[in-house]
Amino acid sequence: MRTQVGIIGAGPAGLLLSHLLHLRGIDSVVLEIRSREYCEGRVRAGVLEQGTVDILTEAGVADRLHREGLVHHGIELRYGGKGHRIAFERLVPGRAITVYGQQEVVKDLFEARFAAGGTIHFEVPDVELHDIDTDHPSITFQGQRLECDFIAGCDGFHGVSRKSIPEGALTIYERTYPFAWLGVLAKVPPSTEELIYAYTEDGFALHSMRGPEISRLYLQVPPDASLDEWPDDRIWAELKRRLETIPDWELTTGPIIERGITPMRSFVAEPMRYGRLFLAGDAAHIVPPTGAKGLNLAAADVRMLAEAISHWYATGSDELLDRYSDACLKRIWRAQHFSWWMTTLLHTFDTDDAYGRRLQRSYLDYVTSSEAAATTLAENYVGVPFERFGTFGG
Amino acid sequence: MRTQVGIIGAGPAGLLLSHLLHLRGIDSVVLEIRSREYCEGRVRAGVLEQGTVDILTEAGVADRLHREGLVHHGIELRYGGKGHRIAFERLVPGRAITVYGQQEVVKDLFEARFAAGGTIHFEVPDVELHDIDTDHPSITFQGQRLECDFIAGCDGFHGVSRKSIPEGALTIYERTYPFAWLGVLAKVPPSTEELIYAYTEDGFALHSMRGPEISRLYLQVPPDASLDEWPDDRIWAELKRRLETIPDWELTTGPIIERGITPMRSFVAEPMRYGRLFLAGDAAHIVPPTGAKGLNLAAADVRMLAEAISHWYATGSDELLDRYSDACLKRIWRAQHFSWWMTTLLHTFDTDDAYGRRLQRSYLDYVTSSEAAATTLAENYVGVPFERFGTFGG
Repeated sequence: MRTQVGIIGAGPAGLLLSHLLHLRGIDSVVLEIRSREYCEGRVRAGVLEQGTVDILTEAGVADRLHREGLVHHGIELRYGGKGHRIAFERLVPGRAITVYGQQEVVKDLFEARFAAGGTIHFEVPDVELHDIDTDHPSITFQGQRLECDFIAGCDGFHGVSRKSIPEGALTIYERTYPFAWLGVLAKVPPSTEELIYAYTEDGFALHSMRGPEISRLYLQVPPDASLDEWPDDRIWAELKRRLETIPDWELTTGPIIERGITPMRSFVAEPMRYGRLFLAGDAAHIVPPTGAKGLNLAAADVRMLAEAISHWYATGSDELLDRYSDACLKRIWRAQHFSWWMTTLLHTFDTDDAYGRRLQRSYLDYVTSSEAAATTLAENYVGVPFERFGTFGG
Repeated sequence: MRTQVGIIGAGPAGLLLSHLLHLRGIDSVVLEIRSREYCEGRVRAGVLEQGTVDILTEAGVADRLHREGLVHHGIELRYGGKGHRIAFERLVPGRAITVYGQQEVVKDLFEARFAAGGTIHFEVPDVELHDIDTDHPSITFQGQRLECDFIAGCDGFHGVSRKSIPEGALTIYERTYPFAWLGVLAKVPPSTEELIYAYTEDGFALHSMRGPEISRLYLQVPPDASLDEWPDDRIWAELKRRLETIPDWELTTGPIIERGITPMRSFVAEPMRYGRLFLAGDAAHIVPPTGAKGLNLAAADVRMLAEAISHWYATGSDELLDRYSDACLKRIWRAQHFSWWMTTLLHTFDTDDAYGRRLQRSYLDYVTSSEAAATTLAENYVGVPFERFGTFGG
């Protein structure tokens, strides 16, 4: 078997890359360890930057996104008995976010890939990468060999791609946090029109949504928390305790239809390339979900990678491939910093550090009272425009 | 002996308070453990916010300050082989800082106090406070008793005032840093017109000045560093290594006329009052010097205290005295946060934390490329206007 680009992973990064390449006349084959149903059911992020919406729109896979996605022009920071709106329309005019679940993006991409005759192999558990430091790399799976010009590692943090790079070739930057997120999907209309990021002395909570009938809610929990300890009653009680902190506001409860615990980690592997293997999305970098950047970074990576690969086919020049990693890392480190910043601003850390807690409260007071400080939150949350970080020009 | 306000400490806080009270027709006596020469020779901060200049001007003690002070409209952040100017005139139009040494402020205040017939007792080492929780507090020293209506504790972090408050009455918020500053005064024209805050992987350095002929320079050093380990040659070599990091820029060296090592500490004691004792300046709070806020906070405190005390004499009402601590603490916590922020942005921490160093570099890149982020630095550096934090109105 032969293709131009072998893509490991049928998450949003791999599927979008495959489609962007297709639109440029480049063939690819996607290999996925899980089933299609699993990929479509995996509940993840749900906040799309304008730039991500633009990529999906240009790729022709955003019809349903534009119909069903909720455009938001602000978020609320709730703490100290008050809600404080970060008003995008005033702070970063013309820029907004769209709330649309990652699994919906994945469904739309599957549909587009199959409509275009794309090849995706599901449930291939024994993927191995070969000769990635040569110009004839290949991938073996289920006794078959897929020969290709390039391999794109879009298989997430735990995938085989990054692990196929020899030890010492990558520099790893990493940080963990002393807490995790317990996330639930509930069949209940959201109690808020815009996302609420709530800081309390007992921990963080986030009220998000996935449409007019589905709420998405998160709780800061200890890093070793288990779902067994969190029956539905306890989840709702704790969400109420952390969110019902302003007058006359009530959280509507309902049946929980999905639940999971997400560890909080910051991670970057550099460079995002080894020979003919290119890493994109979570395979190369992880952010804690507080800044809602994971999916958006993945989309930005594959946008660059599609451009670099098609440039090679058009001109034979390695130039953009050589610049891929550095070009992506500008945006990635901005998002790494922002995600760390949002996380440290809003979560409860060491309860014995009285100075740290006052500092955190001072920072919240500053962010919600200074136009400049609120703008730093807003401009990062809506995302850095591609004109700035995201072209091979810089 | 009797006075209206007994003031402990002849630093800028105590002297300015004494003078502000005098201008409102209120008598005070200042008690100082050191000699006048010592107070005038003590080299400390040198960056005055506009608000501090305004207080000194209104108090009639700023003639020389206006003649000799250097008005600056920006600072430079230097790192990664480049200088990045934080341009106050663009980011916070109409607001600037004035470079004028704290010991010059002290000299001007001594002159004003003595010209006005003020009473200052120097070299009184055995000061004790009595009956501070009654309405007839007193201070004993050298076998004498000074009776007063109020006592102002302006005697710094190590002074007797805060220590006279019963244990448990104050809440202490504190943080230390894993480094200190080695500061020198050198008889050499500054090599720069504006202050340079330099970040290097080997540590922070600051180039400041005290006029056209005197440079003020600082180096981040280990917390246990001793002056014995830092002969002049080593100081200049290290300053050059950390400051000569951009093309065609040279540090001019010269005779070092003063040197000292300053620990880095964040500290707040709340409330800033116990009965008839009111704390002001370093007696109640300490910031690391990176944000240049110590002297400015002290001036803001005593401005509020003078108003609260004169309101009591004018009306008999405790109202402003009761609000003194909370009113000051708004500005203090903003400055605490800013000073911590500047310190963590610019100093080298754990060299093993690769992620942390990249995060720090990302933050520097952000602050020097985003108008909003640069504005957060600028607006804090020039100081929050009194209209916002610094009146009893809010």
